[in-house]
Amino acid sequence: MSWLEDELHEQPAALARLIERQRENARRVAELLAAEDVRYVLIASRGSSSNAARYAQYLLGRAHRVPVMFATPSLYTIYEQPPRLDGAAVVGISQSGASPDVASVLAEARRQGRPTVALTNEPDSPLAREADAVLLLEAGPERAVAATKTYSNSLGAIAMIFAAVDGPEAESELERMPDVLAEQIALSLDSAPPLDEYAGLVGATVVGRGVNYGTAFEIALKIRELSGLVVEAYSPADLMHGPIAAIQPGWPVVLVAPSGPARPSVEDVVLPLQGRGARLLAVSDVGAVLRRAHTRLPLVPHVPEWLSPLTAVVPGQVTAMRLARLRGLDVDRPAGLNKVTLTR
Amino acid sequence: MSWLEDELHEQPAALARLIERQRENARRVAELLAAEDVRYVLIASRGSSSNAARYAQYLLGRAHRVPVMFATPSLYTIYEQPPRLDGAAVVGISQSGASPDVASVLAEARRQGRPTVALTNEPDSPLAREADAVLLLEAGPERAVAATKTYSNSLGAIAMIFAAVDGPEAESELERMPDVLAEQIALSLDSAPPLDEYAGLVGATVVGRGVNYGTAFEIALKIRELSGLVVEAYSPADLMHGPIAAIQPGWPVVLVAPSGPARPSVEDVVLPLQGRGARLLAVSDVGAVLRRAHTRLPLVPHVPEWLSPLTAVVPGQVTAMRLARLRGLDVDRPAGLNKVTLTR
Repeated sequence: MSWLEDELHEQPAALARLIERQRENARRVAELLAAEDVRYVLIASRGSSSNAARYAQYLLGRAHRVPVMFATPSLYTIYEQPPRLDGAAVVGISQSGASPDVASVLAEARRQGRPTVALTNEPDSPLAREADAVLLLEAGPERAVAATKTYSNSLGAIAMIFAAVDGPEAESELERMPDVLAEQIALSLDSAPPLDEYAGLVGATVVGRGVNYGTAFEIALKIRELSGLVVEAYSPADLMHGPIAAIQPGWPVVLVAPSGPARPSVEDVVLPLQGRGARLLAVSDVGAVLRRAHTRLPLVPHVPEWLSPLTAVVPGQVTAMRLARLRGLDVDRPAGLNKVTLTR
Repeated sequence: MSWLEDELHEQPAALARLIERQRENARRVAELLAAEDVRYVLIASRGSSSNAARYAQYLLGRAHRVPVMFATPSLYTIYEQPPRLDGAAVVGISQSGASPDVASVLAEARRQGRPTVALTNEPDSPLAREADAVLLLEAGPERAVAATKTYSNSLGAIAMIFAAVDGPEAESELERMPDVLAEQIALSLDSAPPLDEYAGLVGATVVGRGVNYGTAFEIALKIRELSGLVVEAYSPADLMHGPIAAIQPGWPVVLVAPSGPARPSVEDVVLPLQGRGARLLAVSDVGAVLRRAHTRLPLVPHVPEWLSPLTAVVPGQVTAMRLARLRGLDVDRPAGLNKVTLTR
């Protein structure tokens, strides 16, 4: 078995460990973000962590009702004109905690006396050292270059912060997720064979919105990293404002459409995409959505929408692994990528 | 001549008109953004306007030293859980001013008593009606579906807000730009013939950072809209964190690298891209950068970096138009796109 496959299967246990061990830290982070002088949350991240950050943008936006924005590291590192951060709480998300650009945003926040939080798998990392509060990802060592369990535990960590604010019902919904995640992994592996028709393709487009906007980006990144296909992500609204022009007959489009308020917006693009001859794949627990697609990637039903990114990414992880195998690639060490990437 | 080509050539005159007519409004907007209780700027936009918003993120971040973030319209429209906006000044950017999701963010800001600004070409639009201050784009009617002069005038409007804060030197630098833009259009049309080798391709990747991060996205969108190629944009740092895996031998990568602090960061990806066999195109005024590329898209020299997005987008507009022609497409009405897109 590859490291990647091991780590894919470790996700439920890793999530359970996170929930068990980090409850106090999650509460502490939630309190820090809820401090009276916090007007907005600023997140610094790269790669898969930026896709987890997109989940945080929606979830923490709803938990704390404060806007969540992404840092522009070049203002700190390249232009050396960091903004004034009064009103900010600053969160860094990084599995390794090593990338200088992410740590530099937290360092500047500290210099300005603002609260800082790190979500990282490495307690002794440069990022953790810049943080007032650290929520450890508890994913255990991740050896495959492509993130799986550190991604799902980054989502889990963000969900824990939300649950700490939202209350006991949300906490117990989250506690059921390790079992649901195991069920999802089995379901996605079972539903994978029809994916083989996509192995020879050039690329694909993934569409998601709201809490699953980041899921669309993570599915795209995972397939891209592992199989070398050109895969991109859009919200349905952004896709309609121009980029849909590149969807040619036969081009695969993955719709991430679990039950919930964002689903009708994703379904808005079905007819325009069918009109262009796109080959639709659906990631959904809704029969009506799955039936409109050429390829069905079913989700375990009855998952609350706010937690659906934990299951909705799994069909993408499985697709990425399967396409890479079919293309004869090493899933643990994709050509030219490193586990830890240092950028300025 | 197509509308698109007319409008491409109208850009210098449109920019001159904007600078002449909107100075007072730009000052008013700058004052509003500099109000004591403004901790951050929130921008709502879609399509090309989102690429102008990326310019604003860097430029207003540097002018006012406050973080600039993008709205998540679905929190307003789909989840109906808009964030608390105390500390925000809210800017909507939209050529038509018609898209409901953009106007709804300004409407919510008004409800919460926060200052609102519209950058729009339509004084009577729903967006303009929600704004305390309107900076009109003064581009005149734009008939081609793909934005050219409304995009460059959106950049111009943002540059005017910056100049109103930065002072007379910046203002006179901006006043020289209509002439420089005319020179750039002539230069880019002259340097276009080598682009013909790309007409049969599937797609391309565009890389830019800092003030030209949005330029990379706009070049990608323009080629995509007009030619139907799959074109995507990344910052060099984001590209290195995984997505570079999809760059296969022969895949075209456009480096947007004008003189300035962000240029070395863009050049960081040259060796990794050459290692993967990418075919490099360079948009630059720097000989050393142009010489490293397979295809040279020269920029007029001596443009201050903060204004370089006004010229750096032109080679992209010209490329988009040329590839569409070679592919036998109607540049004024790309298949399946509308001038005004209404999304929720």
